Amino acid sequence: MPAGKVSVVGIGPGLPDHMTAKAREALEKSDVVIGYKLYVEQVKNLLSQQEIIASSMGKEVERCLLAIDKAGNGKKVALVSGGDPGIYGMSGLLLQLAGEKNPSLEVEIIPGVTAAGAAAALLGAPLMHDFAVISLSDLLTPWELIEKRLEAAAYADYVIVLYNPRSRGRSDLLSRAREIVLKHRQSETPVGIVRGAGRNNQKQWETTLEELTVLIEAVDMASLVIIGNSHTYWDGCKMITPRGYQV
Amino acid sequence: MPAGKVSVVGIGPGLPDHMTAKAREALEKSDVVIGYKLYVEQVKNLLSQQEIIASSMGKEVERCLLAIDKAGNGKKVALVSGGDPGIYGMSGLLLQLAGEKNPSLEVEIIPGVTAAGAAAALLGAPLMHDFAVISLSDLLTPWELIEKRLEAAAYADYVIVLYNPRSRGRSDLLSRAREIVLKHRQSETPVGIVRGAGRNNQKQWETTLEELTVLIEAVDMASLVIIGNSHTYWDGCKMITPRGYQV
Repeated sequence: MPAGKVSVVGIGPGLPDHMTAKAREALEKSDVVIGYKLYVEQVKNLLSQQEIIASSMGKEVERCLLAIDKAGNGKKVALVSGGDPGIYGMSGLLLQLAGEKNPSLEVEIIPGVTAAGAAAALLGAPLMHDFAVISLSDLLTPWELIEKRLEAAAYADYVIVLYNPRSRGRSDLLSRAREIVLKHRQSETPVGIVRGAGRNNQKQWETTLEELTVLIEAVDMASLVIIGNSHTYWDGCKMITPRGYQV
Repeated sequence: MPAGKVSVVGIGPGLPDHMTAKAREALEKSDVVIGYKLYVEQVKNLLSQQEIIASSMGKEVERCLLAIDKAGNGKKVALVSGGDPGIYGMSGLLLQLAGEKNPSLEVEIIPGVTAAGAAAALLGAPLMHDFAVISLSDLLTPWELIEKRLEAAAYADYVIVLYNPRSRGRSDLLSRAREIVLKHRQSETPVGIVRGAGRNNQKQWETTLEELTVLIEAVDMASLVIIGNSHTYWDGCKMITPRGYQV
């Protein structure tokens, strides 16, 4: 039996033109493609003979176990992950489970363009200085820890990238995050919102901490919110955090 | 005269297989390619008729001005940037200067795989939970602010990604960063070091905060250092930060 392998493939933030050559090759050379159905849909036109197994959100453990099982039986498995698999993606869970179930299994992680990178590119250049990436989802993290991290990031003047700004439909998480950041930052601090970065239906809003309240309902689970540091500014519709070059 | 354009092209962390299709297309369709010579070298085999302008480190302002000037004269300019142009890359400076010199100029930012993403993929899955990205370079940032950010990130249990861990050859920056993080984190906290992520000569080390001292001389300017949070662990040579899934 040939040795199987799991490639955890970062397909990037949406449209296939943001996928790397390496990710594409891993998909094309795989025997089995496993993933959340939305992501599998995004790469379907790259596939030909592969067995395709798409499942719904919340089935992450099952998908990983299936990938490990198939690879244990000699298959080349591509486990697809949106954006970069290493950032709130599938890498960690797959490695944890592979370590338990089949420690000698070959696993490769193929990085991808992150949702944050795609959102930043649309907004301009908000991440040119130190930044903190925080998920507001309190499904897997106590809200107290999320608050502590928001507070620390705001205090130390990090640019702040919020993933999952709406968790289980709750819009109050973002409101509470805004209140915490406002303790340390001016109300006119730039805030950029990107919904569906890198997808056909992508949409963006330019606002400030003050004005964020009126846009909170526009923010969905797949949106990213980027809050500037004390030097970030809007130049028209471009959000820019200077790095410190003399220009 | 046709309208010119500057595309700030993220070529990813090194080898061209980590480049996106969109980045590749922007290079191929450009009239002029401008960049730091190491990065231009990395993409040279994708180019044919393009005018190529490579310059040395420290010439960032000149490169941006040249790109803006050429695009103002109707050229399609690809300004190459290593990793993701929006993360300590060329996007910000280009947008700042374009805003001054030629506000109506078309600028497109093409995101790429970050050095952090590539390093994380090699190490395993260290960035599966909230993380802070900090540059230790004090060329453009006062060291006091860097310390404040390190302290805040350590206090709030962020995974910490250190860019430019050696600035102007100074190895004491990383030593000092280590001391600050140790105030809040156990000495056995996992630390991963990756030199030349995504390049042919990439190299990685698995260590801990305690043992980091003996590796400090191995860390160069192009290395990335990732310090785990209080839940990060080494499983063999895989660095894993659990996200909180029940497995």
